[in-house]
Amino acid sequence: MNTLDCNISNIKIDPAYRLAAKRSVDHTTIVRVGHIKIGASALTIMAGPCAVESKKQLLETAKSVERFGGQILRGGAFKPRTSPYSFRGLEEEGLKYLKLAGLEAGMPIVTEVMDTRQVGLVGAYADMLQIGSRNMSNFPLLMEAGLSQKPILLKRGMNATIEEFVMAAEYILSRGNDQVVLCERGIRTFETAYRNTLDLNAVPMLKSMTHLPVIVDPSHGTGHRWMVAPMAKAAIAAGADGLLTEVHYRPEEALCDGAQSLSPEEFQKLMEELKVLAPSVGRKVGKDEGILKN
Amino acid sequence: MNTLDCNISNIKIDPAYRLAAKRSVDHTTIVRVGHIKIGASALTIMAGPCAVESKKQLLETAKSVERFGGQILRGGAFKPRTSPYSFRGLEEEGLKYLKLAGLEAGMPIVTEVMDTRQVGLVGAYADMLQIGSRNMSNFPLLMEAGLSQKPILLKRGMNATIEEFVMAAEYILSRGNDQVVLCERGIRTFETAYRNTLDLNAVPMLKSMTHLPVIVDPSHGTGHRWMVAPMAKAAIAAGADGLLTEVHYRPEEALCDGAQSLSPEEFQKLMEELKVLAPSVGRKVGKDEGILKN
Amino acid sequence: MNTLDCNISNIKIDPAYRLAAKRSVDHTTIVRVGHIKIGASALTIMAGPCAVESKKQLLETAKSVERFGGQILRGGAFKPRTSPYSFRGLEEEGLKYLKLAGLEAGMPIVTEVMDTRQVGLVGAYADMLQIGSRNMSNFPLLMEAGLSQKPILLKRGMNATIEEFVMAAEYILSRGNDQVVLCERGIRTFETAYRNTLDLNAVPMLKSMTHLPVIVDPSHGTGHRWMVAPMAKAAIAAGADGLLTEVHYRPEEALCDGAQSLSPEEFQKLMEELKVLAPSVGRKVGKDEGILKN
Amino acid sequence: MNTLDCNISNIKIDPAYRLAAKRSVDHTTIVRVGHIKIGASALTIMAGPCAVESKKQLLETAKSVERFGGQILRGGAFKPRTSPYSFRGLEEEGLKYLKLAGLEAGMPIVTEVMDTRQVGLVGAYADMLQIGSRNMSNFPLLMEAGLSQKPILLKRGMNATIEEFVMAAEYILSRGNDQVVLCERGIRTFETAYRNTLDLNAVPMLKSMTHLPVIVDPSHGTGHRWMVAPMAKAAIAAGADGLLTEVHYRPEEALCDGAQSLSPEEFQKLMEELKVLAPSVGRKVGKDEGILKN
Repeated sequence: MNTLDCNISNIKIDPAYRLAAKRSVDHTTIVRVGHIKIGASALTIMAGPCAVESKKQLLETAKSVERFGGQILRGGAFKPRTSPYSFRGLEEEGLKYLKLAGLEAGMPIVTEVMDTRQVGLVGAYADMLQIGSRNMSNFPLLMEAGLSQKPILLKRGMNATIEEFVMAAEYILSRGNDQVVLCERGIRTFETAYRNTLDLNAVPMLKSMTHLPVIVDPSHGTGHRWMVAPMAKAAIAAGADGLLTEVHYRPEEALCDGAQSLSPEEFQKLMEELKVLAPSVGRKVGKDEGILKN
Repeated sequence: MNTLDCNISNIKIDPAYRLAAKRSVDHTTIVRVGHIKIGASALTIMAGPCAVESKKQLLETAKSVERFGGQILRGGAFKPRTSPYSFRGLEEEGLKYLKLAGLEAGMPIVTEVMDTRQVGLVGAYADMLQIGSRNMSNFPLLMEAGLSQKPILLKRGMNATIEEFVMAAEYILSRGNDQVVLCERGIRTFETAYRNTLDLNAVPMLKSMTHLPVIVDPSHGTGHRWMVAPMAKAAIAAGADGLLTEVHYRPEEALCDGAQSLSPEEFQKLMEELKVLAPSVGRKVGKDEGILKN
Repeated sequence: MNTLDCNISNIKIDPAYRLAAKRSVDHTTIVRVGHIKIGASALTIMAGPCAVESKKQLLETAKSVERFGGQILRGGAFKPRTSPYSFRGLEEEGLKYLKLAGLEAGMPIVTEVMDTRQVGLVGAYADMLQIGSRNMSNFPLLMEAGLSQKPILLKRGMNATIEEFVMAAEYILSRGNDQVVLCERGIRTFETAYRNTLDLNAVPMLKSMTHLPVIVDPSHGTGHRWMVAPMAKAAIAAGADGLLTEVHYRPEEALCDGAQSLSPEEFQKLMEELKVLAPSVGRKVGKDEGILKN
Repeated sequence: MNTLDCNISNIKIDPAYRLAAKRSVDHTTIVRVGHIKIGASALTIMAGPCAVESKKQLLETAKSVERFGGQILRGGAFKPRTSPYSFRGLEEEGLKYLKLAGLEAGMPIVTEVMDTRQVGLVGAYADMLQIGSRNMSNFPLLMEAGLSQKPILLKRGMNATIEEFVMAAEYILSRGNDQVVLCERGIRTFETAYRNTLDLNAVPMLKSMTHLPVIVDPSHGTGHRWMVAPMAKAAIAAGADGLLTEVHYRPEEALCDGAQSLSPEEFQKLMEELKVLAPSVGRKVGKDEGILKN
């Protein structure tokens, strides 16, 4: 049983997003990333550092993520940064560390691609391509990602309406790639107490409009490490199919986003809390859940 | 066990809101409304129609609210409406129906006061005074509500920052009244797919800053009846102490907010879902929970 | 010639704001405050301190305002402040100083009323009642202001849509008072470089929808003294009928809003610049313009 | 004399945008596009259709733009559209028409580049490259545009803070290209009466922070043809160095943005009004102004 009370009257094939739209109340797409299924009753937990900083940092973090129940390893090799003078990632070297860490920990990897010219390179290492918030309306990149036939993690732009978000997914789908996971990660509002305003209304709304899995990033959605656990639980209660969270083996030493990264112990605690919460909304969570059997 | 991971480093007595600020991590205030305690481990469910429309409508709705586990009856006798030509409530007649319905159903009542001149009148009927979003920065009204010594339900302004919201509570507290419950009800953003953008980040943030109970209104926070249940569950998972929801015995006939009002059956279903969810975050819910014993 | 290119197709009597709506392209209302006409070809300049702080401060400031071409004296006796611990105005003593300063300088006065219970008192001293941003949706206050038969300066709420703003005016008009001036004063957005985001789009939009005069407050709309002059000129170029600006005889000593208050010299310079600009958009400005004759 | 009252105390070399920051109150950069200078006392008017639709449409429109005083021809060959099913431009064919129209009318051309892979192609035809709102944080594109050594028209992202906007320019400057013009084009707010909320506060703020020219796009900033003229005048009064406006020889037939495109007659009228207004703020406007002499 899915606990989301779907809006049956919402089921209409809107010509504006004809491929992303649900065709029936039960219409859902399962996205496959390596041996992991996203969008089924098992929750999918993607975790890892904001940026790949070193081999040691990544391997240590990956080990903790795997041990405590993370299923997909995240980490940025190409980082969009507001300043041209900030650390912008290890680039191909980072991709190699990701590949290695994924193999060692037995987890598929997801990493961001920022440029149409990088899609081939990143796709050669990654199991799933992330399109970040700043590029949600980078239409050439969406189309190139569509053509890549890789599963795509599409993050909502920080000022994108729900309709624009679904239309961005439609760009990818229209290139013949239906392996798209939507990620709510907070929008920009007047509020300055948090880095972004996590918009959990988006979860039931997106689930009622589209057949695509919807996950939530409580790290960017709050900007505060101590807010990640309550908002992760809220996301799951709202009907999300999984989480994208920042974990760093030593958050206080992180080159970026340290303030919102969980330590391995905090991640472990969150996973334990999710194991208690998930069944109450008809979901399962854990490293042995949501695995392709074959 | 409270599942909220409080931000210990946040504990400082900010001189700007010296009375509302937490004095220690464990500092919480229990607000008492009739025989109901708000802010303890039991969740508080406030429910009822947007507006009091008739004696029959209110008594029927109150009966359902009580039967399915609501503890405080809400209903508007004085309604703030965007248009001067809209129905603005039954006024004192509505207050009388509220009093009667509360007595019949054995529930304390909460209703909105919009004008300093009405505080005495509304206070003569209501167990708790609501200050609505549009009046969150109506400082004379906040001060008058403070002087009334009634418990106050203070709703966040739709463009109020968290700090402004806490400062509005401080206005009430500074008049010697610490019986204040904060209510997140959605903020105004660029998104038009929902009536407001429910800001659940506010729940852990407010809980870490103040000792006051925090509840959530998923009816105004979404504007869509079918979104109320998932967002109500999300609110509880985020750490809210209760809910304020619109229930109408016949939503399709409601004079206002019908689109976001639950039918009695939907309210019953929500309460059943909450009974499953609440223990997973260390809370209890139900009509026999959170009752003052004496 | 009025330089505003009115949207003829916009002229429809919207039933939602039937009294505020234009009935023809040329339909405009002239609001009279003492001997000053607002909404004719002459621009109206309202200026003075944020708060009345002392007799000396007000009389000195009023003298400068009058000398350099201000026509209506503004100053707050009752101040809405975010904190209950901030200076909230001199109250009735402040009203007395305003009355005195207005008489000495030969200028009508405008001052804020925050509470329905104050309308009579403030109306006994002031020539025009200001309803501030925080009270734009304080409907009992709007109705009381309507009944007062005083001219009303209605400021836009910081999160109010244009339609809500016009509906707030409709509340006043529906009580038989058509002497309403609308004031754009900046809205709340994600931008933090300025105190508010001055929305000059509102000027042609309001002028096309309603017959009421529209003025602009570049002091609150920017929060920076040095931005007042360029934005004041922009407001006039956009078609505004006047300005509301903060002037203080010693801005660095102001108890509130010093950072956005012009010194007398800066106000003088602004008025000189406006005298050059106004004719280029078919307007006049100066202390002898816009005076009722008889 | 520049009429902007610069904030002298703002003059500091912020290390975050060390190349874009003003080094003194008088520090300004003149950007050269063909024979046109941007950022001097003469205003620069860029005008043309949203999208290049056909040779006839572009040549006819260009002729009108030139006749009435436009100096740079704009037109989109690659169009970012919310839907993958909308018209996305004539691509290289459109670039050829632009080149031809520019030669025939004697105007340099500016057109959008959306993809790092297109920079060479677009640069082979265009005199100035436009980076659109959706790509303001497309950092690889900014860097590629920087390397191109073409003058760049950088539009503000619809949710970009002023600081992020200046940092985006810094990306271009950090690649050795200081020929950058900033364009305010409206931000996204809660207001739905206009397509965007034109933020004219940005004009004096950007002029005080950076040495780069600042222009304003009142077409996207309002979305309504009839609002373009008042807001164009407001932009100039606020201190803008020029305008970017949509003009179409037959707006009612436009494939995109017809509602906000001026007809040739409306453009002519606007130019006449600007000729009256510009001198009142110390500027000049007209096809013979701002021309490089040699």
